Amino acid sequence: MAYNLLKGKKGIIFGALNDMSIAWKVAELAHAEGAEFSLTNTPVSMRFGEIHELSKKCNNAPVIAADATSISDLENLFTQTMEHFGGKIDFVLHSIGMSLNVRKGRTYDDLDYNFLQKTIDISAISFHKVMQVARKLDAINEWGSVVALSYVAAQRTLYGYNDMADAKAMLESIARSFGYIYGRDKKIRVNTISQSPTMTTAGSGVKGIDGLMDFTERMSPLGNATAEECASYCITLFSDLTRKVTMQNLYHDGGFSNMGMSLKAMNMYNMGLENVENPEELD
Amino acid sequence: MAYNLLKGKKGIIFGALNDMSIAWKVAELAHAEGAEFSLTNTPVSMRFGEIHELSKKCNNAPVIAADATSISDLENLFTQTMEHFGGKIDFVLHSIGMSLNVRKGRTYDDLDYNFLQKTIDISAISFHKVMQVARKLDAINEWGSVVALSYVAAQRTLYGYNDMADAKAMLESIARSFGYIYGRDKKIRVNTISQSPTMTTAGSGVKGIDGLMDFTERMSPLGNATAEECASYCITLFSDLTRKVTMQNLYHDGGFSNMGMSLKAMNMYNMGLENVENPEELD
Amino acid sequence: MAYNLLKGKKGIIFGALNDMSIAWKVAELAHAEGAEFSLTNTPVSMRFGEIHELSKKCNNAPVIAADATSISDLENLFTQTMEHFGGKIDFVLHSIGMSLNVRKGRTYDDLDYNFLQKTIDISAISFHKVMQVARKLDAINEWGSVVALSYVAAQRTLYGYNDMADAKAMLESIARSFGYIYGRDKKIRVNTISQSPTMTTAGSGVKGIDGLMDFTERMSPLGNATAEECASYCITLFSDLTRKVTMQNLYHDGGFSNMGMSLKAMNMYNMGLENVENPEELD
Amino acid sequence: MAYNLLKGKKGIIFGALNDMSIAWKVAELAHAEGAEFSLTNTPVSMRFGEIHELSKKCNNAPVIAADATSISDLENLFTQTMEHFGGKIDFVLHSIGMSLNVRKGRTYDDLDYNFLQKTIDISAISFHKVMQVARKLDAINEWGSVVALSYVAAQRTLYGYNDMADAKAMLESIARSFGYIYGRDKKIRVNTISQSPTMTTAGSGVKGIDGLMDFTERMSPLGNATAEECASYCITLFSDLTRKVTMQNLYHDGGFSNMGMSLKAMNMYNMGLENVENPEELD
Repeated sequence: MAYNLLKGKKGIIFGALNDMSIAWKVAELAHAEGAEFSLTNTPVSMRFGEIHELSKKCNNAPVIAADATSISDLENLFTQTMEHFGGKIDFVLHSIGMSLNVRKGRTYDDLDYNFLQKTIDISAISFHKVMQVARKLDAINEWGSVVALSYVAAQRTLYGYNDMADAKAMLESIARSFGYIYGRDKKIRVNTISQSPTMTTAGSGVKGIDGLMDFTERMSPLGNATAEECASYCITLFSDLTRKVTMQNLYHDGGFSNMGMSLKAMNMYNMGLENVENPEELD
Repeated sequence: MAYNLLKGKKGIIFGALNDMSIAWKVAELAHAEGAEFSLTNTPVSMRFGEIHELSKKCNNAPVIAADATSISDLENLFTQTMEHFGGKIDFVLHSIGMSLNVRKGRTYDDLDYNFLQKTIDISAISFHKVMQVARKLDAINEWGSVVALSYVAAQRTLYGYNDMADAKAMLESIARSFGYIYGRDKKIRVNTISQSPTMTTAGSGVKGIDGLMDFTERMSPLGNATAEECASYCITLFSDLTRKVTMQNLYHDGGFSNMGMSLKAMNMYNMGLENVENPEELD
Repeated sequence: MAYNLLKGKKGIIFGALNDMSIAWKVAELAHAEGAEFSLTNTPVSMRFGEIHELSKKCNNAPVIAADATSISDLENLFTQTMEHFGGKIDFVLHSIGMSLNVRKGRTYDDLDYNFLQKTIDISAISFHKVMQVARKLDAINEWGSVVALSYVAAQRTLYGYNDMADAKAMLESIARSFGYIYGRDKKIRVNTISQSPTMTTAGSGVKGIDGLMDFTERMSPLGNATAEECASYCITLFSDLTRKVTMQNLYHDGGFSNMGMSLKAMNMYNMGLENVENPEELD
Repeated sequence: MAYNLLKGKKGIIFGALNDMSIAWKVAELAHAEGAEFSLTNTPVSMRFGEIHELSKKCNNAPVIAADATSISDLENLFTQTMEHFGGKIDFVLHSIGMSLNVRKGRTYDDLDYNFLQKTIDISAISFHKVMQVARKLDAINEWGSVVALSYVAAQRTLYGYNDMADAKAMLESIARSFGYIYGRDKKIRVNTISQSPTMTTAGSGVKGIDGLMDFTERMSPLGNATAEECASYCITLFSDLTRKVTMQNLYHDGGFSNMGMSLKAMNMYNMGLENVENPEELD
C-alpha cells in the first residue's frame, strides 16, 4: 500500500549493494511512494552487487558511481543528479560503513592506524563530505531531509564491533554539527537512524552476529526491526510530516535501546547458566 | 494535502481543549488522514473549552467525558469507544498535564505535597491508568500505537517548570515500562514526543514563557515546532510506517535538545551583556 | 586505609538496615574518614535491623527514628541532629526504596494504584521532602553534598523491577530539579549514584536477582560494584574534591551502563542457545 | 590540605602547557597528594610553554617530549617512565586537543579535510594510541585509571566549536570501547571528564569564549568549574575510591549539562531582548 508520501520529491540513495541492503529497501519504497532518485555506490560495490537491477525496478533511476570519500566524485554525483532531475533534490540516504580492522581481524587493542583512518573516512567523514558538497552546490531544497544509518554501538560497547563503534559515534556527532548549520541556513534537517542489527551483506560479516541477533530479538519487546521496516521509517523522515525533527539519533530497534533485561532474554541466559558445569570458569 | 495514512484506524484523543491545543491539531489531521476517534477530556475542561466544535469538524466524533485519573471513567471511555466503532482501536494520544503547585505559585522548594501528588496522578500516572485499563479490556489492536506528549524538562531543569519536570520524567519512564509489557504481549508500541514549548492555553500559563520561547526559537536551527507540526509528527507515529519504534522519547523541537549554543541566541544574550551596567549584579 | 577525607564533616545517613546495606557501609567508611553523623530509619526497620550495633561502631552516632515520608519526622530528625552537633551538617545519604506492588506480586500491568502512590512517596518524593525540610531549616552548610542511591532501571526497563523503575526515574529528576535550586541558592550539590545490582536485604527480594547479577557481572568489564565500593564512591562525593559535580546521575557499575554486549555474557547466552532444543519455543 | 590519596601511585600527565592548563593543576595536586609522574607534551608546546618550571615544583618530575600521535614517541615515553619509576604506572591524564580548522578560521561547512584528519588524530585517536601502546607494553597496574578531558560539545552543538565537537564525540567513544577491553583484561578503568569551558590558553582561543562563559556561569547553579576544581575531581578518579567507575563521561560543570534554563541566564537574555529595537532582525 502506497500513500504518495514522497510524491514529487527527488533524492540520492547511497549504499544499495543487493536486495539484502537497507538502502535497497529504501529505494524500492521511496519509488513506491512517488519519489525519484539516483542510486550510487563505489565502482567496486557496483560490480560486486546488483544496483542496475534495482535501477530497473525504480523506473530506470540513474546509477552514478561515486566513492563517498572523494570530493570530486561527490561533486560529479550531485551535479549529474541535479542535471538529470532539472533542479535541486529533497532527500539523501547515507548507508555507508566499512572497517578494514574488522575485515582483517585486528582487535581493538591492536588496531592498524591506517585502517582506522580509512574506517573513519569511509564510515563517518564521508557523511560530512556529502553534506559539504551538497551545501556548496546548493543542491538540496529547503525542508529537505538527510538521513544516515547508525547503530547502538555509538553509545554502548559491543565486543567485536571494534572501531566501527567510534566511527558511528562520530557519524552521529556530524549529524548534530552539520544539522545545526544546515537547519539554520537552509532549513534542511539531518538525522541518524539507529537500526537493529540487520542481516545485510555487511551485517552478516560481523563476528557472532547470529547469537547477538537472537539476544536482541529476545530483548526487544517488538523484536528486531527488519530492513523493510527501516525503509518505512526512512520514508517518514523524508516526508513533510517530520519537518521539525533534526539533529536526532532515532532508535528503530523494537525497543532494544531502552531495555535493561527482558524476561525472554533472561530465560535463555539462565538456560546457559544451568547447563554450564562450572559457570565461574566460562570465559 | 492528505495521504490516507490512517485510513481505517480508530483511536482516542485525550486533551483537546480548544484550537490552540496540540490534541486539537492532532484530531483535525488524524481526521484528514482517514482516522476515526473519540474525543475526551475532563467535564470541567469540556465546559471551559470547545471540544464539541472539534467533534463537528471531525465527522461528529464521539465526545466522552473522562477524568483520566479515574479507572471507572477510563473503563467507560474505552468501552463506549469500542462499542461505537464496533471493535478495538489502533491509537491513543495522551496530552494531559497540570500542576496546582505551578498554578498556586508554590515554588519547588516550597511544594505542597498534596498538590504534588495530584500533579503526578494527573500528569504521569494517568498515562499508566489509560494503558492498564486498555490492556485489561484488550482494547487496542496488535501494532497499535500509544503516544504521550512530554517536554525536555524531563531531562533538563528549567526554572519555573517546577514539579511538572518530575511528572514528565515519570511519564517517560512509564512509556518505557509499559512499552516493554505492551510490546512483548500485544505488539503495541508506546512512545513520548518531547515537543518544543508551545503557546497553548496550558503553555501560556508558564511564567516567562515569552522570553523562553524566544530563546528556544533562536537556539533551534529550525525554530520552535508548532502545534500543527507536532500533529504531523504524531500521525507518522500512529501510522504503519513506524511499527518498530517503541519505548522512545522523540524530540520534536527544531533541534533544540541537541544544541549547546547557537549564534543567534548568543548574539541576543550578548546584547543583554552589553546593555547591563553591572553584569555581576544582575540576578 | 583512611585519608581523613571527611574530617570535621557532619551528616545524616538514611537507610542502614543491617551489614548488607549500602548505607551501613557508607556509615562505616564515613566514620573511618573522620565524619560524624546521625543514623536514621523507620521505627519498623530499626526493630527488624541492627542500626544500634552500627551506631556503636561509629562512635555512638545518634540514632533517630524517622519515616522519610513524614515532614514532622524529618523536621525532628534535622533539628535533633543539628542540636547534637551544635550546627549545620555537610552531607546526606538517601538510601530508601520500597514497592508494595513488588512485594505483593502485582505485575506492572496490574498495579494497585494505592501501592503505586506509596512506592512513589517512599522511594522518590521522600528525597524531595528531605531536601525541602533541610532547606527550610537551613540545615546544610554551603558546599554540602546530598546523594541518593538509584538504579539503571530509571533509564532501561528490567522485567520484574516494576514500578520501582518509575520511582527511580522520578528520584533522579528530583535530584536535578532540587539540585538547581540548592546549588543556586546555597551552593549545595545533589547527585544520584546508579549502583550495580547489590545483594542487600532489599535487593535479595527482587525476582530472579541471581541470574541478573550473573548477567551484569559478565557484562561489566570490571564486574558488579559491591556495597563497600559504593561506599568509597559516596565518600568522594561527600568530600571537598567534587564540589562542582551536581545534578548528575553517576553510574557506579563496573561499566555495565555503557555495554551493549560483552564476550563473556554472549558466551553464556550462547550456551543457553546451544542447550535449548527448540529455541523458538522458549518464552 | 592534602589527604595522601595518591600515595605511592605513579603516572603520566599529558598536556601541561603553562599554569593556566588543567593538566598543570592536576600535576600540582597529584604531587601534593603523594603521586609521582612524568610530564609530557610535544616539543613545540614545551618550547612555547613552561613545563620545566612545573617539573621543579613537582619534585623534578621527568619531562619527556612526545607527540601523542606518534607510536614510537609514545613507546619511548612509557618505556622511559617505567624505567624511571622502576615499574608500572597507575594513572594517565590525557589533556590534548587541537583543530587547525578552528585556528585557520575554516567554518564547519567549509572544512579542510586534511585539517580534519589532524584534528581527529591529535584530539581523539591519540587517546587510543596512548592506551594501545600502554597495553602492549603492559605499562599500567591493575586497578589503574585513565582519564581524558572532554567537553559537552560531544553531545550538544555549540557554534564555533567546529570539528572539535566530532573529535570529542569520538574521544568519548574511545573511552568506552577501550574501557571495555582494558577493564575486562586488566581491571583498568577509562573515563572522560566533561569540563566547563575553562580559560586556558587553548580555551581562550575559542571565538566568543567570554560571552559563552558568562552564559554557562549563569546557567550552572554552582557556576563554571575552574581548572583547580577539575584537578581535584581528577584526583578522585585516580584514587582507589572510584575503582568501579569506568566507560563513563563525567560532567564536571557546576550542573550546566542538565540545565534547560536558569533564572539568571534568562534574566540576562531578557535584557538583550528588551534592548534590541527589532529583535526579529537580530541575527
